[in-house]
Amino acid sequence: MNRFWSEYPHIERELENVTNIMKVNIKSRESEFTKAISPLVDAGGKMLRPAFLLLAGKFGEYDPEKMQNLAATIEMMHTATLVHDDIVDESKLRRGVETIQSKYGKEYAVYIGDFLFCQCFIMLSEYNYSPENLKNISKAISKICMGEIVQYNLRYSKNTSVRKYLKIISGKTAALFAISLYTGANEAGCDEKISKLLGKIGYHIGMAFQIMDDILDYSGNASKLGKSAQRDLISGYYTLPLLYAIGEDKENKIGDILDNSSLSEADVKELVLLVDEYKGMERARELADKYTKKAFDSIDKLPECESKKIIRDITDKLLNRNF
Amino acid sequence: MNRFWSEYPHIERELENVTNIMKVNIKSRESEFTKAISPLVDAGGKMLRPAFLLLAGKFGEYDPEKMQNLAATIEMMHTATLVHDDIVDESKLRRGVETIQSKYGKEYAVYIGDFLFCQCFIMLSEYNYSPENLKNISKAISKICMGEIVQYNLRYSKNTSVRKYLKIISGKTAALFAISLYTGANEAGCDEKISKLLGKIGYHIGMAFQIMDDILDYSGNASKLGKSAQRDLISGYYTLPLLYAIGEDKENKIGDILDNSSLSEADVKELVLLVDEYKGMERARELADKYTKKAFDSIDKLPECESKKIIRDITDKLLNRNF
Repeated sequence: MNRFWSEYPHIERELENVTNIMKVNIKSRESEFTKAISPLVDAGGKMLRPAFLLLAGKFGEYDPEKMQNLAATIEMMHTATLVHDDIVDESKLRRGVETIQSKYGKEYAVYIGDFLFCQCFIMLSEYNYSPENLKNISKAISKICMGEIVQYNLRYSKNTSVRKYLKIISGKTAALFAISLYTGANEAGCDEKISKLLGKIGYHIGMAFQIMDDILDYSGNASKLGKSAQRDLISGYYTLPLLYAIGEDKENKIGDILDNSSLSEADVKELVLLVDEYKGMERARELADKYTKKAFDSIDKLPECESKKIIRDITDKLLNRNF
Repeated sequence: MNRFWSEYPHIERELENVTNIMKVNIKSRESEFTKAISPLVDAGGKMLRPAFLLLAGKFGEYDPEKMQNLAATIEMMHTATLVHDDIVDESKLRRGVETIQSKYGKEYAVYIGDFLFCQCFIMLSEYNYSPENLKNISKAISKICMGEIVQYNLRYSKNTSVRKYLKIISGKTAALFAISLYTGANEAGCDEKISKLLGKIGYHIGMAFQIMDDILDYSGNASKLGKSAQRDLISGYYTLPLLYAIGEDKENKIGDILDNSSLSEADVKELVLLVDEYKGMERARELADKYTKKAFDSIDKLPECESKKIIRDITDKLLNRNF
C-alpha cells in the first residue's frame, strides 16, 4: 500500500479495510476477471477520496463498517473511471502497473470498467444509504464523464478559456472530492451545514489538486515529467500553465509550435521553456494557491477535533508541494 | 418508433412515454452529448425489455409513472451496454443509424455509455424502488459484462461447449429479460410466486430469443444475414448453429476452414452450407423451441388477464419466427 497515510496509523488501518472490501467486491465467478482487476486495486494510490470520506464521517456518528463500505464504493467508482480513461488515453501504465487496456485490450477494459460500476451500485444497495446520497454520487460520476467529454472536445483548441478549463477540472476531479466529503458527513448524520462545509472543502481541495497536477507536468527536469507533458500535448490536452502562457505570448511562438503536425521532443522542450518564460506555471500556481486558501479558510470553520487537524495537515501535505 | 407493438395501441402509447422519459434523462448541459445519444434513442428498436416490464407490472397494482420510469431505466441500461458493445465490435451501424463509436470515436462511446449508466442510477434513486430490486438490476448488468467477457475469452475456440454457450447467452441476454419481468411485477406489489414466475418466463424468452438471433445469422440467402455471420465468424464468435455443426463434422471440414488466417466470402458461404449440412441450425432451432415451450408452460400458469394474453401473443410473434 502507498505510504501516504503512514503518519496516521488508524486511518491507514481503516484504508486497508477499505481495500479489503474492494477486493471482496471485485471477486467474481470469472477468475480471469478478478485477475485482471486485482493489480490496479493492489497498487492502491493515495486513496484520497475514501480517506477524506472517512475523515468527514468522523464529524458525526461514526459507524466504521458503513463508512468503510461507502469509502470502498467511492474508490471503486474512481477506479472504474480510471480503467475507462486508460482506453481513451491508450495509457500503458497506471499506478506503476500495466493498464488493463494495454495488457488485455480495450474489450476487457470496457467491460471491466462497467463491471466495477455495477459492483459499486450493488455495494451501495446493500447498506441503507439515503437515496439522495445515491443520487448525488451518480451525479458526480455523471459529471466526471461530461468533464472528460468536454475536455476531449476541446483538444487542440488553443483558445480554450481559463473558465472552460476550470469547468472541466471541476467535473472531472473536484466533483468526486466534494461528494466524498459531503456524503461521508451526511451519512454520519452531521448537520447539513457541516456536511456542506465539508463538501466545499472537498471541492476546493479537488480544484487545487488538479491544477497542481497539471503544473507538475511542466515542471522539473526529470524526463518522467517531461513525458507526461509531451503525451498530453501530443494528444491535444492543453492545461492551465499552457493556456496562461498562450495568453501572454503575443508573438504566437507557442501557437506556431503547437501547429506542427507532430511534436518532436525538441518541440516539447521548447514549449516547456516558453510556458516557464511566459509565467504559465507561476500563474497557475497562484490560482492553485487561491483554491488552497479557500480550502483552509473553510477548514478553519470546522468544529475542533482530531479529524479537522488531519484534514488540515493532509491538505497542506498535498497542496503545498514543492515544485 | 418501431411498429412491433402496433397491435397493442395502449402498450405502444406507454412505450412512447418510456421513450420520452429516456429523452428527458439524456438531456445534459453539454448539448453535444445529447446530440450524440439522441439518434440511438430515437431509432428505438423493439423495446422488448421495457414492454415486458410494463406487462409484468400489470399483474399487480399498476402505477404508470413509477412503472414507466423503471422501464425507461432498464431500456437505457440496455442502450448503455449497446454503446459499449459497439466499441468492442467496432460496429458501424446499430438500429440502422451510425454508431457513436463510428461517428464520434471510441472516446465518446466510452464516456457516453458511462454517462447513460449514471443517468440510470439517478433515475432509480428518484423513485422509491426497493433496494433489493436496485441490487438485482445492478447484478443483471454485471452479468451482462461477465457474459461479454466470457464470450470474448472464448473467441476462436472451436471446442466451446454448448453448456458454455448457454452460460454466455444467459448472462448477456436472458438475465436482463428475467430481471425486467421480475422487477416490474415485484414493484407492482405482486406475490413473490407470481414475480418469480414472470422472471422465469423472461429468462426462457431471453434464452430462446438469443438462440433464434444466432440462428438468423446462418439462415436465408440475403446478403445482409450472410454479412452478420461473416462478421461474427471473422471476429471468432462461434454461436450455437456452428458449435452443433462442429460436433457432427467428423472430417473436420469446418475446423479446417476456420483455421484459415482470414476468412474469404467464399469461406463464409461454405461454412454456412456446412452448418446447414450438419444440421446445426435445425438442432439450434430445437433447443430454442425447448426454451420457447418452457416459456409458454410458465405463461399458462399465470392468472388470466389481458396482460397474460399479450405476453403469450408477443412471445409467439417473437419466437415462432419463420426461417
